[in-house]
Amino acid sequence: MSGNTFGKLFTVTTAGESHGPALVAIVDGCPPGLELSLRDLQRDLDRRKPGTSRHTTQRQEADEVEILSGVFEGRTTGTPIGLLVRNTDQKSKDYSAIKDVFRPAHADYTYHHKYGVRDYRGGGRSSARETAMRVAAGAIAKKYLATLGIQVRGYMSQLGPIAIPFKSWEAVEQNAFFSPDPAKVPELEAYMDQLRRDQDSVGAKITVVAEGVMPGLGEPIFDRLDAELAHALMSINAVKGVEIGAGFASIAQRGSEHRDPLTPEGFASNNAGGILGGISSGQPIVAHLALKPTSSITVPGASVDVNGQAVDMVTKGRHDPCVGIRATPIAEAMMAIVLLDHLLRHRGQNAGVQVSTPVLGQR
Amino acid sequence: MSGNTFGKLFTVTTAGESHGPALVAIVDGCPPGLELSLRDLQRDLDRRKPGTSRHTTQRQEADEVEILSGVFEGRTTGTPIGLLVRNTDQKSKDYSAIKDVFRPAHADYTYHHKYGVRDYRGGGRSSARETAMRVAAGAIAKKYLATLGIQVRGYMSQLGPIAIPFKSWEAVEQNAFFSPDPAKVPELEAYMDQLRRDQDSVGAKITVVAEGVMPGLGEPIFDRLDAELAHALMSINAVKGVEIGAGFASIAQRGSEHRDPLTPEGFASNNAGGILGGISSGQPIVAHLALKPTSSITVPGASVDVNGQAVDMVTKGRHDPCVGIRATPIAEAMMAIVLLDHLLRHRGQNAGVQVSTPVLGQR
Amino acid sequence: MSGNTFGKLFTVTTAGESHGPALVAIVDGCPPGLELSLRDLQRDLDRRKPGTSRHTTQRQEADEVEILSGVFEGRTTGTPIGLLVRNTDQKSKDYSAIKDVFRPAHADYTYHHKYGVRDYRGGGRSSARETAMRVAAGAIAKKYLATLGIQVRGYMSQLGPIAIPFKSWEAVEQNAFFSPDPAKVPELEAYMDQLRRDQDSVGAKITVVAEGVMPGLGEPIFDRLDAELAHALMSINAVKGVEIGAGFASIAQRGSEHRDPLTPEGFASNNAGGILGGISSGQPIVAHLALKPTSSITVPGASVDVNGQAVDMVTKGRHDPCVGIRATPIAEAMMAIVLLDHLLRHRGQNAGVQVSTPVLGQR
Amino acid sequence: MSGNTFGKLFTVTTAGESHGPALVAIVDGCPPGLELSLRDLQRDLDRRKPGTSRHTTQRQEADEVEILSGVFEGRTTGTPIGLLVRNTDQKSKDYSAIKDVFRPAHADYTYHHKYGVRDYRGGGRSSARETAMRVAAGAIAKKYLATLGIQVRGYMSQLGPIAIPFKSWEAVEQNAFFSPDPAKVPELEAYMDQLRRDQDSVGAKITVVAEGVMPGLGEPIFDRLDAELAHALMSINAVKGVEIGAGFASIAQRGSEHRDPLTPEGFASNNAGGILGGISSGQPIVAHLALKPTSSITVPGASVDVNGQAVDMVTKGRHDPCVGIRATPIAEAMMAIVLLDHLLRHRGQNAGVQVSTPVLGQR
Repeated sequence: MSGNTFGKLFTVTTAGESHGPALVAIVDGCPPGLELSLRDLQRDLDRRKPGTSRHTTQRQEADEVEILSGVFEGRTTGTPIGLLVRNTDQKSKDYSAIKDVFRPAHADYTYHHKYGVRDYRGGGRSSARETAMRVAAGAIAKKYLATLGIQVRGYMSQLGPIAIPFKSWEAVEQNAFFSPDPAKVPELEAYMDQLRRDQDSVGAKITVVAEGVMPGLGEPIFDRLDAELAHALMSINAVKGVEIGAGFASIAQRGSEHRDPLTPEGFASNNAGGILGGISSGQPIVAHLALKPTSSITVPGASVDVNGQAVDMVTKGRHDPCVGIRATPIAEAMMAIVLLDHLLRHRGQNAGVQVSTPVLGQR
Repeated sequence: MSGNTFGKLFTVTTAGESHGPALVAIVDGCPPGLELSLRDLQRDLDRRKPGTSRHTTQRQEADEVEILSGVFEGRTTGTPIGLLVRNTDQKSKDYSAIKDVFRPAHADYTYHHKYGVRDYRGGGRSSARETAMRVAAGAIAKKYLATLGIQVRGYMSQLGPIAIPFKSWEAVEQNAFFSPDPAKVPELEAYMDQLRRDQDSVGAKITVVAEGVMPGLGEPIFDRLDAELAHALMSINAVKGVEIGAGFASIAQRGSEHRDPLTPEGFASNNAGGILGGISSGQPIVAHLALKPTSSITVPGASVDVNGQAVDMVTKGRHDPCVGIRATPIAEAMMAIVLLDHLLRHRGQNAGVQVSTPVLGQR
Repeated sequence: MSGNTFGKLFTVTTAGESHGPALVAIVDGCPPGLELSLRDLQRDLDRRKPGTSRHTTQRQEADEVEILSGVFEGRTTGTPIGLLVRNTDQKSKDYSAIKDVFRPAHADYTYHHKYGVRDYRGGGRSSARETAMRVAAGAIAKKYLATLGIQVRGYMSQLGPIAIPFKSWEAVEQNAFFSPDPAKVPELEAYMDQLRRDQDSVGAKITVVAEGVMPGLGEPIFDRLDAELAHALMSINAVKGVEIGAGFASIAQRGSEHRDPLTPEGFASNNAGGILGGISSGQPIVAHLALKPTSSITVPGASVDVNGQAVDMVTKGRHDPCVGIRATPIAEAMMAIVLLDHLLRHRGQNAGVQVSTPVLGQR
Repeated sequence: MSGNTFGKLFTVTTAGESHGPALVAIVDGCPPGLELSLRDLQRDLDRRKPGTSRHTTQRQEADEVEILSGVFEGRTTGTPIGLLVRNTDQKSKDYSAIKDVFRPAHADYTYHHKYGVRDYRGGGRSSARETAMRVAAGAIAKKYLATLGIQVRGYMSQLGPIAIPFKSWEAVEQNAFFSPDPAKVPELEAYMDQLRRDQDSVGAKITVVAEGVMPGLGEPIFDRLDAELAHALMSINAVKGVEIGAGFASIAQRGSEHRDPLTPEGFASNNAGGILGGISSGQPIVAHLALKPTSSITVPGASVDVNGQAVDMVTKGRHDPCVGIRATPIAEAMMAIVLLDHLLRHRGQNAGVQVSTPVLGQR
């Protein structure tokens, strides 16, 4: 229970540091018979990969994944799927300067106090590089969910101060920001260019949506679907907040406004974000997450060293000025993992349940 | 993994329906030798108890807890602690009208699709009545944490549209709203009185803070302390959003603003909410949660019945017009359970770790 | 993970001491819609109950169980089932003499070192009284398994030096020993009567068999069905050994003798005990367990006290001269719990698997 | 919970098939600061490696392990340790003949029914090749335990009909059988040579002993140390029985004989096998396991194919005539993993417990 495994029936265990030899994952519990190829995994890995535009870190990582087990003649066998991604562009020499100091807002100080020792190169285990394996594992979950008509997709809904309205899913894949509004892209680019000139960073908001989810997924009391989604999404590096449906806007809503009417034609609204009593309702599942600005900036900042002495720090190296830009595939992966895990758990207990009541969709 | 257990080393398992004979909990993994009496549990149960002011449901429940095991001669023995609370004011007759219809924004529809059958009386298992056992279990966690100088406290930070500034912890316990600002109480009372006249309900925001937490609690990668807190807090009935520290405000922050400087005198700010890289930093741990307005209101609403036919619904019975009012002790309980669980997990792996670096507090 | 919960999808959590107010269990993950009444539970509780013959302890416990939750209108709802059994015949005064000494071969010494404190009355948590809740929970598992044609039954196969051949299932329920051979009962009674005169105790062997189990239950690698059965059965008080199928006799077998031929008419033998590669084969699942003689005897024995000083001990109180006599329902319960748990786990991952290969039974 | 992870705080997750590209493991929860090198792992891998004598399979595997993460500058960091072993001598062409038939006493038939598909090459996931990763992970556990003075060692105590008395630990490492009696080796060699001429296989008994274990490890009720050992040891390929201490001999023992007297100089005997009430007593922990004869023999055997038709089978390929010969390091590994896991769990809950009672050893 050292926290490197997620899920109960569909489980993902990862290992690997930013500047170690490799990242590795073991995906257990995948249903057998699923067609699965490297291409299925590589597509999402490439969406997360650094260095694809000038707005992300310039570290060059091919992020090529190898399937070590669990797939035979193009299909999953039900046994665990081993995944391996070699690190190729570590440049460890960049990092020796931070060996004995704690970068502000990084995990240096807390890992130091927790473990006594740490791999300080590039953040070691605390680096977001680890999320590559989540994306690879999530691609497997997505593939299985797709066979049941469930689609998990995300987009950037805010970059710093710029809110991005949802226009279309098609737009999302056609720009470096995962912006659902193509008209906003020039504004986003201008903002990022200025940010780089300021040598600063900024936060972002990501929205993830699952459509086609059947009613019934989620386990009361503690493992509500929304609670597990919150767990999964908050576990992504830099996330500081998670909302389901109306989220924090619910505070000022009245009950007569918040509750989503059920009609024979479907739910009339979706303040619930597709989850009632912790269980999926058949509506789209909608989550928003807030990502903080990365702390790896070249603006000098105050900190202390391992002896508790004050130091002035500049975090060099290659960094993302907005980690939110690459976060969309990670958020999708975590939602897909949660949904598949709950699908299997639901099936285990309730496989035989049959109800004649019609399933309502979104009106 | 049906979701009625929370925690890994300090675990809480609950059972019981709103209108069944009793609620029950088994608290496992409590360190031995802790002084524990009924009074320790009853105090927090009374803080959550309905019917203590005109602003909460008028259901009368004594919520008297019995300790069935795990405590001997006034001290915990390390064996599981069984807890029992009998239901005394069930009034099941009130509920037969909703047997075949689904109350909007309740769990009726989703439980029906998940299980095929459900105990419809008062929401059955989906009722917030279940949270009584969380509060009882949380009181045990709080008691142990207190022996280490850790204090977990919460307050209402917003009621509907009314933001409540933090003034003092003393104020919190002196009004029915857990308001930290006594000057705000008349405004809150007036708002609630109008709400009752409107027969409507409203949301709220609760803030929970843990002080005195040592650095090092929290497990990367998936079981980050913030991720587990998000899980725990989102699992509370009606919660739609969770923030750690600056939360959603992080989106528009710049890195140079968000990062909390480390100084020999302590951290200079706390945008992180006391957690860096998923691990406690020694700063106060701060979480905010958004609660939706309860859907049990007498304003008629559209819904469907088990045959999918349209019906017009009025939810009668005794309900809280703002479930947030009683949520503070529940949120405290969940945070305390998470912290104690992580304290034990940390101790298991890292009991022997010693670092000479000074621990920084909040400046 | 303090060890009071068993199972992954169908989970049983228990609490309660020998001389505390009550025993309690929470059974989570039971499929909904199962008809369940007190009678279903009480039947097996009565089979385990002490005081039903002169060959068991004379402690009088009604062992009347109350269902606190999870059952509505005679059917399980899928929510956790709370179970309560009050202790009624504690006689705590008998036990003060052993407060500061360690009874040989009991858990006194080890609990003392583990927890520092212990409820010494009647063994506290280490008493086999705890197994009452396993039997109650197991009865629920048995009931569900029976709806699928799976039957779990056990018998005594050896008492001290007396081997008992299997004759019929009918015989098992018609004597106080769960002996499958009625002709052996007089010999068993004579042996036990002499044992009481000797004020000594003796071990026993129990055999448990599950018939009607479909192929496919059990999870490689670590959660093989045989491994989980070994775990479950070894967790019963006094068990010192577990065998599957041919068990220890396999050591001297040759491969040409041990391997069970597959024929179109079924498996030709069952050295495997119904499990191949950790997965059920469709053959009867057969396990044997060895129970040690209880250490609560009035023959004086050497021991030490809490100061490490030598003492001479006589264990008074009311005890079973052969704990194996009451162990059959407990072993059945644990096997049933394992099977149901694995059935749900298998269903979760592999619900959609279809093979055209015929299922072989036992020839 | 698909069964490829073992442990609660110190966890081992494995993946990989007999004839896939590689075996992989993720070891999570290892305490930080432990000196660890490839040599520590390779030593035990070499002890398990095939092809080191004429009495084991002639498959040539280097079994060279690579550490992918979790170790930095020669010490564990507390983050997960990724381990990789490439398969080098797969010879997949040997196995196509068994694609559509089920080898008797193998997992072919059960995997087929469980998953619908299977990697039939060399047994795929059900091959004992998987145990290489257990041995690698176990070496880490052994290394940590050794820093606390705990030593886990095993030996062969019976080969087919030949019982092997314990003579010395030194002898164990000086012959191909792990025989603790050097005088028995010629008899074992002659037996094995005849067995190969008979083209048959035979079972074996392995004994594993942990010395230096402190009192207090093991969690009542379900996670007793003996129950978890039974789980761990029964999960090893071919194991059909597990005993703790006196094991099945306890059946015919009297209580006055079985109970181990406590004296100020230590326990006077060890029928308990070092475990009382599921918790370690400070005595040596002793377990015995029965391994069946491998079913991969060239003596023809009856079986069926995927259509349920009778076939006559000869299992070709390279196999161990007695899998027990290579099982000693695997059994040691599993015992070490269980002990370290329980050490961490015990420390988590009971880190602060102090008792003045002296610890008894073996007299």
